[in-house]
Amino acid sequence: MLGKVILEEAFALPRLEEKTRWWAGLFSTEPETHVKEIQDLTDIRLKHADKHGVGYTILSYTAPGVQDIFDPKEAQALAVEINDYVAEQIKGFPDRLGAFATLSMHDPAEAAAELRRTVTQYGFKGALVNDTQRAGADGETLIFYDSPEWDVFWQTCVELDVPFYLHPRNPTGIVFEKLWKDRQWLIGPPLSFAQGVSLHVLGMVTNGVFDRNPKLQVILGHLGEHIPFDLWRINHWFEDRKKLLGLDCKKTIREYFNENIWITTSGHFSSTTLNFCINEVSSDRILFSVDYPFEHFNDACDWFDNAEMSTRDRAKIGRENAKALFKLGQYKDSEAKVI
Amino acid sequence: MLGKVILEEAFALPRLEEKTRWWAGLFSTEPETHVKEIQDLTDIRLKHADKHGVGYTILSYTAPGVQDIFDPKEAQALAVEINDYVAEQIKGFPDRLGAFATLSMHDPAEAAAELRRTVTQYGFKGALVNDTQRAGADGETLIFYDSPEWDVFWQTCVELDVPFYLHPRNPTGIVFEKLWKDRQWLIGPPLSFAQGVSLHVLGMVTNGVFDRNPKLQVILGHLGEHIPFDLWRINHWFEDRKKLLGLDCKKTIREYFNENIWITTSGHFSSTTLNFCINEVSSDRILFSVDYPFEHFNDACDWFDNAEMSTRDRAKIGRENAKALFKLGQYKDSEAKVI
Amino acid sequence: MLGKVILEEAFALPRLEEKTRWWAGLFSTEPETHVKEIQDLTDIRLKHADKHGVGYTILSYTAPGVQDIFDPKEAQALAVEINDYVAEQIKGFPDRLGAFATLSMHDPAEAAAELRRTVTQYGFKGALVNDTQRAGADGETLIFYDSPEWDVFWQTCVELDVPFYLHPRNPTGIVFEKLWKDRQWLIGPPLSFAQGVSLHVLGMVTNGVFDRNPKLQVILGHLGEHIPFDLWRINHWFEDRKKLLGLDCKKTIREYFNENIWITTSGHFSSTTLNFCINEVSSDRILFSVDYPFEHFNDACDWFDNAEMSTRDRAKIGRENAKALFKLGQYKDSEAKVI
Amino acid sequence: MLGKVILEEAFALPRLEEKTRWWAGLFSTEPETHVKEIQDLTDIRLKHADKHGVGYTILSYTAPGVQDIFDPKEAQALAVEINDYVAEQIKGFPDRLGAFATLSMHDPAEAAAELRRTVTQYGFKGALVNDTQRAGADGETLIFYDSPEWDVFWQTCVELDVPFYLHPRNPTGIVFEKLWKDRQWLIGPPLSFAQGVSLHVLGMVTNGVFDRNPKLQVILGHLGEHIPFDLWRINHWFEDRKKLLGLDCKKTIREYFNENIWITTSGHFSSTTLNFCINEVSSDRILFSVDYPFEHFNDACDWFDNAEMSTRDRAKIGRENAKALFKLGQYKDSEAKVI
Repeated sequence: MLGKVILEEAFALPRLEEKTRWWAGLFSTEPETHVKEIQDLTDIRLKHADKHGVGYTILSYTAPGVQDIFDPKEAQALAVEINDYVAEQIKGFPDRLGAFATLSMHDPAEAAAELRRTVTQYGFKGALVNDTQRAGADGETLIFYDSPEWDVFWQTCVELDVPFYLHPRNPTGIVFEKLWKDRQWLIGPPLSFAQGVSLHVLGMVTNGVFDRNPKLQVILGHLGEHIPFDLWRINHWFEDRKKLLGLDCKKTIREYFNENIWITTSGHFSSTTLNFCINEVSSDRILFSVDYPFEHFNDACDWFDNAEMSTRDRAKIGRENAKALFKLGQYKDSEAKVI
Repeated sequence: MLGKVILEEAFALPRLEEKTRWWAGLFSTEPETHVKEIQDLTDIRLKHADKHGVGYTILSYTAPGVQDIFDPKEAQALAVEINDYVAEQIKGFPDRLGAFATLSMHDPAEAAAELRRTVTQYGFKGALVNDTQRAGADGETLIFYDSPEWDVFWQTCVELDVPFYLHPRNPTGIVFEKLWKDRQWLIGPPLSFAQGVSLHVLGMVTNGVFDRNPKLQVILGHLGEHIPFDLWRINHWFEDRKKLLGLDCKKTIREYFNENIWITTSGHFSSTTLNFCINEVSSDRILFSVDYPFEHFNDACDWFDNAEMSTRDRAKIGRENAKALFKLGQYKDSEAKVI
Repeated sequence: MLGKVILEEAFALPRLEEKTRWWAGLFSTEPETHVKEIQDLTDIRLKHADKHGVGYTILSYTAPGVQDIFDPKEAQALAVEINDYVAEQIKGFPDRLGAFATLSMHDPAEAAAELRRTVTQYGFKGALVNDTQRAGADGETLIFYDSPEWDVFWQTCVELDVPFYLHPRNPTGIVFEKLWKDRQWLIGPPLSFAQGVSLHVLGMVTNGVFDRNPKLQVILGHLGEHIPFDLWRINHWFEDRKKLLGLDCKKTIREYFNENIWITTSGHFSSTTLNFCINEVSSDRILFSVDYPFEHFNDACDWFDNAEMSTRDRAKIGRENAKALFKLGQYKDSEAKVI
Repeated sequence: MLGKVILEEAFALPRLEEKTRWWAGLFSTEPETHVKEIQDLTDIRLKHADKHGVGYTILSYTAPGVQDIFDPKEAQALAVEINDYVAEQIKGFPDRLGAFATLSMHDPAEAAAELRRTVTQYGFKGALVNDTQRAGADGETLIFYDSPEWDVFWQTCVELDVPFYLHPRNPTGIVFEKLWKDRQWLIGPPLSFAQGVSLHVLGMVTNGVFDRNPKLQVILGHLGEHIPFDLWRINHWFEDRKKLLGLDCKKTIREYFNENIWITTSGHFSSTTLNFCINEVSSDRILFSVDYPFEHFNDACDWFDNAEMSTRDRAKIGRENAKALFKLGQYKDSEAKVI
């Protein structure tokens, strides 16, 4: 399928190459290739895209990124640097490459302002944030974005009409020491990453973020970070106990998934699981993605192009849903790639 | 369907009634009913069972139970008390009621000995343990059972030919303070419970517990605590990186699920999710369960008896798999309930 | 769910009551109730609809109807009589009741003219035809509508922007004698009805009807009359052999299902099968229906309202797809029934 | 996966090569290859098997075969010739090749006797019959096997403990002229073949064949010839109307599918449909097959070996179910091919 759109696609800053190399060594079977691929924004990447029928890519800064920096000023400076950098790099490829804003999430107003700057000035397609913001003197405070003070930020997303991608962040600090240290091979895509994101997005639901911002659109990777598997159970547990637990969310969890939440296939190329998700959240709310360079274009695209599903769902998940959500209709080069 | 077997069914000690009542108040919409039901072992319970076609129930002590007690002596004393108590209570109903041993998991040999005692002396059907054992002076040390020193315990399970049910425990201590305190309504079945269990069982896989004890049978509740949803992804991540991560597990994660792991429907009465699990782990490895009294017999049984699935799968999941695993063929009263 | 739209809902002419009674005796466990229900157009029917959350019903004359009449003049006269009758009956309920035209299919131009008359004069929502038209002196000739001479009819459907419902007809004549006579209990919804329709619609595909009329919309009942089950196989067989077989259809069978064909749930209230169809043809092309009075409102609606599927799919299948296809937005009373 | 067992695999008699060539020309894109492959029993076939991990193949004479011959003596003579021929051809490969008996179905006792001869004398694995037997002076009489006089045949199947494969036959005679002549491209695997078989096996159900012969095992190809798709509907229709229709079958259609009917994947390599069938009839009743040489080994085996399903289901469907049904445990060469 040509003209696919992908949106959980990481890049790194060249000036942090040594850190990138160290990190790659922890999980990549070909760390040097990984370093090259993640630092490249336009060259290797578009060759892969051309070869595998990807028309438009939305880039984002690799995790844990700014959410790992607990000094607010340092965090904000890095966010601005990253945004300016990626905007400059991709400006020659408006029809093929876009970006999500990188944001320091220490302060709602500051985050909102930087989102507004990058969307209006650079045409960014939204923001991608890596779960909670580490904060406090020792980085052990975790900022969740589900309290009313964050509404100023969510209102900005709605006003600018851009979605917010809630991406996992690898665990750090005391929690890491207690739970994960001896099993750090489990700290990767398969299981652990999803836990914080699931908690966070359910906190957003139960703390009324979507009731106060009913047009807010949030994207989750990895086919929804386990939540679709538990949709029945979460619904069952919440609906009976809303009063008892003092929750005031107005709709059912299934309704929020219908109206406010999107899931992507990033890193999860299983037809059985995708079809389960189609049944639980509908193909109207699913978006194809690769998770490059942590995953390979060929694994993702060969799977998706041939996975057994209706051709209608393939078109929606692979391209049409994203074109509508990100208003990509105007990109001619990208469209030219569409069969 | 008559003759169903259920196996994640909790009871509590009457002498701890006040604690049970406090706990019930946190989540139950009818706390007094809950207190009565969880303290009853034979009366209300068998009436429910008769009404809903349940032939045989395996009881276990309610979570967090002994795994929350970080003093080893206190933990062992409570485990023994619970085992003696339930054995006495159910001894008049051998055809209808069995039990899982409650174990202090501070010391492998001690746990193995108590399991042996309860299986040989009382005919217990295996053990149910609530995730990691809290330990250390402040209870912040968590004992995982995936290191080689626990093989003495796993060998005892295999020798006695009884399965081990790994049940969630609600988070406590520092991790709780850091992550969960402000969202304690999420600390329940829907999401958070599953996280520790998933980590633990994957640790058992990757630390070679099943390679060293290839006949060990482990049961997970709640349709597998999210793992089936991620089976493709875990497999994908592990298979490429076994060497890099220094893991020496010999088989694929899917093979361990085929040969060593069972999942139950406790608290997860979704046909869509059950059918997904049938596709991912096969009806040969799924067992019906209720999670009474946290869930109601009618919710579980009305669902299961009418859920759309092949009648063959219904027979296997509802009764036949459990009869083979727990060698229940000899129980006449239970069999008499079988259509 | 309120505001559901249903569209395979039969009525009969009171003047043929004896025939209706005889027919009811062949399959109905309560034939007198059936006779009353099928002859009622507005009273019993709307009570059922109100009780079960149905906002809008599209009526059609019961099978085999005019397709069983092999005299062309007699067939045309009956079609006109039926259309005038139903138009008169429902004219007081524009917000709740619509109709499909009944057509004699002996002559393409005549069928097109009657469709045009009923759509423009009465506001009919399309046509429902019972498979092939019996013709010839002995009724053993079967007229298929897939040859180019029928394009005048298909063009009229497209021009009027109304869909065509291809409904099964019970077998008759020599074929009946040869194949079905001794197993006439099988001549009902479960299996045999679907066979003629499947053949007919695949003939339309392979004879290029949809290529020549790319905007034509055809509806199939009973979750697609087995075709979704065989979609892979039909595609596999056709794609390799198009040239060999002299077929010139331009697209794949999956593409025609995406763009030209709708399926309804009439008489097929299985969640497992519905979810399979969602995966094969997408919820964008599925419409809820009852098949009243052959099926009961409560069987259909209780199932659909509670079947496990995403709430988004439920809304699309239950109401939104039909509202768009039949342009029902203007019906206030019907809309008032929508939650 | 090694050691796969396949069982809808056709051969033809070399002396009828011209007929085989004519037939091949109707559907095959490479007719000469087809002629070679279908006339080869041991050479090309075992090379394909070795390459694609097939351990054991059960051969059967290609359709329509003896069921198309309406002279009883001619039919019996051809059946005996075919059985003797295939027995001779495969006798040097007992660990790799078996056969289904070809039977003239004009007379129950004669069919039973030939089945007994081939099973006891040659070790045949059961019988494969191509739907109804054409009979009568003009071949327009169709013999169904669901009347009590056929019990002598079914009892022989049960006594010999061998299954009966009910395979489709392409339509012929008057029915063909009336219904199919102008759409003969549809007379192939995708749709039409299944119709007669579905009717026939449901006739067996409703005429009590399985009640009178409760151990009888019948195999259907092509994932069950549409019946799984309609299982809910058939059940729904029959259960309400058993009395009315004068049917006396004692169990539900789902129970017959659990206890008497097997389905194979022959020619239907769709993961979506297979998973649907796993949910409807259970992996305990599904058998892998190719339908060679009408289908290619690589299409079938590459699909099956990589289709997303539990490894347990893959083992059962690919090999274990067939080993138990056909008692293949003793075949060393075949076992040697098993991973």
